[in-house]
Order: sequence, then structure tokens, then C-alpha cells
Amino acid sequence: MNDTEAEELVERVLAGEQRALARAITKIEDRRQGYRRIASRLHEEAGDADVVGVTGAPGTGKSTLVDSATDVYRERGDTVGVVAVDPSSPYSGGAVLGDRIRLSSSVDDPGVFYRSMSARGSLGGLSTAVWDAVQALDASGKDVILIETVGAGQNEVDVVGYADTVAVVTQPGSGDTVQTLKAGILEIADVYVVNKADRSGVDRTVKQLEQIVEGRRQTGSGHQGFIDDDPSPESDRVEDGGWTPPVVETVATTGEGVDELVETVDDHLEWLDRSGTRRIKRVQRYSEKIRDLVRQELATEVSDKMHAEGGLEAYAQEVADGETDPYTVVESLVDD
Amino acid sequence: MNDTEAEELVERVLAGEQRALARAITKIEDRRQGYRRIASRLHEEAGDADVVGVTGAPGTGKSTLVDSATDVYRERGDTVGVVAVDPSSPYSGGAVLGDRIRLSSSVDDPGVFYRSMSARGSLGGLSTAVWDAVQALDASGKDVILIETVGAGQNEVDVVGYADTVAVVTQPGSGDTVQTLKAGILEIADVYVVNKADRSGVDRTVKQLEQIVEGRRQTGSGHQGFIDDDPSPESDRVEDGGWTPPVVETVATTGEGVDELVETVDDHLEWLDRSGTRRIKRVQRYSEKIRDLVRQELATEVSDKMHAEGGLEAYAQEVADGETDPYTVVESLVDD
Repeated sequence: MNDTEAEELVERVLAGEQRALARAITKIEDRRQGYRRIASRLHEEAGDADVVGVTGAPGTGKSTLVDSATDVYRERGDTVGVVAVDPSSPYSGGAVLGDRIRLSSSVDDPGVFYRSMSARGSLGGLSTAVWDAVQALDASGKDVILIETVGAGQNEVDVVGYADTVAVVTQPGSGDTVQTLKAGILEIADVYVVNKADRSGVDRTVKQLEQIVEGRRQTGSGHQGFIDDDPSPESDRVEDGGWTPPVVETVATTGEGVDELVETVDDHLEWLDRSGTRRIKRVQRYSEKIRDLVRQELATEVSDKMHAEGGLEAYAQEVADGETDPYTVVESLVDD
Repeated sequence: MNDTEAEELVERVLAGEQRALARAITKIEDRRQGYRRIASRLHEEAGDADVVGVTGAPGTGKSTLVDSATDVYRERGDTVGVVAVDPSSPYSGGAVLGDRIRLSSSVDDPGVFYRSMSARGSLGGLSTAVWDAVQALDASGKDVILIETVGAGQNEVDVVGYADTVAVVTQPGSGDTVQTLKAGILEIADVYVVNKADRSGVDRTVKQLEQIVEGRRQTGSGHQGFIDDDPSPESDRVEDGGWTPPVVETVATTGEGVDELVETVDDHLEWLDRSGTRRIKRVQRYSEKIRDLVRQELATEVSDKMHAEGGLEAYAQEVADGETDPYTVVESLVDD
């Protein structure tokens, strides 16, 4: 794909064409020829969307919750992009037949774009692939982008780290549910959701989460300490200029509580802008992204060069034969 | 240090001067000016020494065993270099007062050089620092180099991976000792040592290790499969042209069994040469080393460039301001 073709594809994405969007994401994800120009251009046009991460342990109903939240956003006129990440799945791409989104009310709704992603499908790493997809969705004009991840490992933390707001989903349980929330996940939570709130034990789980929030607030972790230009908080959730993660109860299957969840996310996004935190988070995010891309780029460059000259083993052989030494080899590879 | 000074230092190392050796190792470890020339030159002159790794869980008596083996090597006229690696220690360098080597019989013996290393002291990474020290000791004419590591994590596996022969040290115990041997360590063991063999339970531990060896032999893991030019094995340890790791009992504090351990290591080194395995291992090692060095070199280069231009944050800020995008930034950093 040459520059003109790349630009044409970008223009179609910016015009909101869903098929062009799918194609652009695939091109970037697979690092196909011309991907960098597409990624650069889409990035230029991105920046207006609200990006919301939804994570938590398997079985907590995240997918249903994301579908339900999508309906709420659509009802009020917002367009929605969904990036569903399953690091363990072999499938990547959009149109897997029988995909759950096809059963939801948003099927054939041009205001919703759905993309699934797995670790296996992305050459540049899952976290970068998700970021690129989010940028593309943002550039295409989606108002809200939901990143949904299965699991709660480092991969998921990296993935939702790109979000402005992170919702951590749990369900009523024996208390184990809350205990299994990893420290890394707790630290990035802006909103806690207790889904399946029609089940017994919900009060106890809510209380446990509130205690966790209180514990974090008192030890000074969490988002406290950011400067707040407006000294009179509009919400009791904002104390001392900081954000105290609220706990929201939902029943995703019936939609109960999902309106309140979306409002809570709105509150957080508003706080992010008011306190200047959104900008701070985004600058951090760009730093990480640049560092990741540089590492990938350098690894690719060296690997290409080595392959062109017979591979790493050819060099190692020369060293073993006493013809050169590792430091001299590295110098010739790097300084060229 | 200019090239002439570097060459003078190298000449003094090659002449066997212990102080020059210590200085050269420190220069390379700290990546001081001129280190690359020194490392290259020492590498050129290295390759003749036998490199033996000694690893295992803490408390198994590895240090005493290394001292005892050093005495055995010295008695038969071999010069010895010891690199003692403790990733958790804050100390690096040679002459820590009260160091255990000062209490052993090899104190003030010019045929023994002792160097301690920790993760904290090495700019290029512990594994690279150990490799460089081994090359320097080799170039300085030491016949045998013993790499001793505390612990049994990935760090230790990487470190002893540079050795021709790896001895894994255990002690008689409840069977837990053997069970705690990590898979990674078992896979690299060429010789098993049951130290403190005057304690009760030694027979059981030896038996368990022999069962592990037998299990590996039958499943075809371990070093089997290399081509053996000589079809008549000189030792019953060499079967089907492969090497079956023997189990040796020692009492390091009295020196009991340490002669046999040294002989077993000799057998393995002889097998390595006869089967061509030493060369194969060394080529692999050079490959890994080149890859490690290339990564470090590139990371340093990009990091220098970023610092010169205001750091990663300055770029992230420009991206946040909409002046550029991450892909364009990376292109400018990498392709310059």
C-alpha cells in the first residue's frame, strides 16, 4: 500500500466507514506495508473519545456488562467502539461468526464497532495493538471506547492502562472474589462494579470493596493529591481534590444499575478534566507508548540486519573460530 | 583511558598481573571509557580455560566446596579464578575485608584470583558482567574458572549458562531438597553433588537424584543425542554417545570426595571435547552474548538520544499537544 492508498484509507476511516476502520486496524496490527503512515495519521485525528477500561476476574459478567453499557450510550446518542481483549484466545479480528456481539441489540448498528483481539494476532504486542485500535476508533469519531479484558494479570493491567477510566468488575461471593483482586488491578481502579447484584452476599462484597477504598484513601494511595482548580466539589465522591473510587451495583443481564454505572464513569471523566489528571495520564501513556515502539523498532532493525548477514549464528561461529569477538560484532551491527 | 593505556592494561593482564586483572574487570563491569577495547582484546586471548559453574540452593555449602575444589586444583598445579555471584548482595568487587576466601588456604596464592559480583554492581547486567570477568580470567591464563552462584532462580541459570560444566549442589535432607530443585536448574546439571555427605539421609538423597537422572535419560532430555566420534565409551557414564550426569558425594569441610568431584568434572570436560559438544555450547553462548550486547547497546543509544533532546517526557508532551504522534517520534529517534 503506497502513501496515496494509505491516505485514501485514512480518509474513509475519518468519514466513519466501518469496513475501512476494520481494514486499517488489521493493517496496523499486522504491521503491513504502509501501516506507520496510517497509524500516524489516525493518531493525529484522535484524542476526543472517552476511553473506558473494563476488567476483572473471569465469570463476573464483563461481556454482558459491556453490551449493556453500550446500549445505554447508544440510547443517549453516543457512538461506541468496543475492543474485547482475550490474551488466551487464538482468535483476533472482527467478524468471528457467532460472536456474542451479534446477539446483542447493537448488531447492524452503524454506531457501534466491535473488535476482538488476542495476544496471538498482534505482531507488535497485545498492548500496542489495543492502543492502535483505540486510536483508530477515536479518529473514526466514536464518542466512547470500551476496552474489555478477560483476566487480571499484567497483560490486562497494561491493556486497560490506556483507558481514561478503569472499571473493575466483581461479583457477590464468599469474600474470595475481593481477595483475588490483584494489587495491580486495585491500584488502577477508578470505579468498582459489583455485577450480578441480585445474588445473595452482595452487601458484604460491597462493604469489603468500600473498606478497600477507605484503606487506600487513608494510606494516601489512589488518585489523591492532584491539584483541583475548583475548590467546591460538585460530587461527594471528590474529596480534597482527589477521586475516591465509588462502588456501583449492577445486574448486567437486566440492565439494572448500568445507567448509574455510566453516570459514575461520566463523573470520573469530568473529574479527570477538571483536575488536569486526564492530561497527565495521557502524557504518561504517550511516554510508555513511545518507549514500547522504540524497543520494538530496534529489535526489528537488529534482527533484520542479522538475518541479512547470515544470522546471529554466523556471527557466533566467527567468534568461536577466533575471527572476531562479541564486542566487535556488536559495534559493527549497531554503528552501521 | 586511551587506546595505548588500554593496551598496556591488557598486556599486564596477559602477563598474569592480579591487580591489572582486577582493574580490567572493574573497567569492563562499570562500562568505563575504553572498556570495549579491553573487552575485545581480552576476548581475543581467551578460550583455553575450563569454566565450571557451581550452583544450588542456599545453605548447601557451595562456598566451602569451591574453596575445597580450588585447593585440589592448586595441588595439581592448575591456576584458578573464582567468580562468586550473589544477586542479592550489595557488594561487588574483590577485596571485601573479612571475605571468606581470605580464611582459606589460597590467601596470598598468586595462582588464585577471587572476584565477588552482585546484581547491583554491574551496568550491563549481571550475566554479562560474569561473562566478561570469565573472559578476563581466561585471558590472564587461569586454567580453571569456577563460577559460584547463590540461589536457584533464572539469574543463576543465566550465569552458570556460560560454564562448560555445571555442578548442582544439594545436601542430605527430607527429600524436599531434591524437590526444590527447579526444572531450569535440573536441565543444566552435568554433575550432581550431595555435599555434607557425612549427615544422615545421604543415601536417600543420592537415590532420588539418580532417579531424576534416570528419568531424564529415558525421556530423552539432557545431553543425549550429540554425535560421538568414538563409539567405545571410556567411561560407563557415557552411554550412547551422551552424558549421563553422575551423582558425587562430598564433605567440603574435610575435603572428602572433592578429588572425585574434580575428576568427574574432568571426565565431563573430556566428553565435551570428544563429542564436539563444547564447541556447540560455546557457539550458542556467543549467540546469546551478542544478542544481549546488541540490546544493551541500542537501549543505551536511544536513551542517550532521548536525554539529549529533553527526555521521553518532552516527546510525550509534544504528542499530547498534538504537534506529533508516537510513530513519527519513534521514526525520528531510530532512523537518525
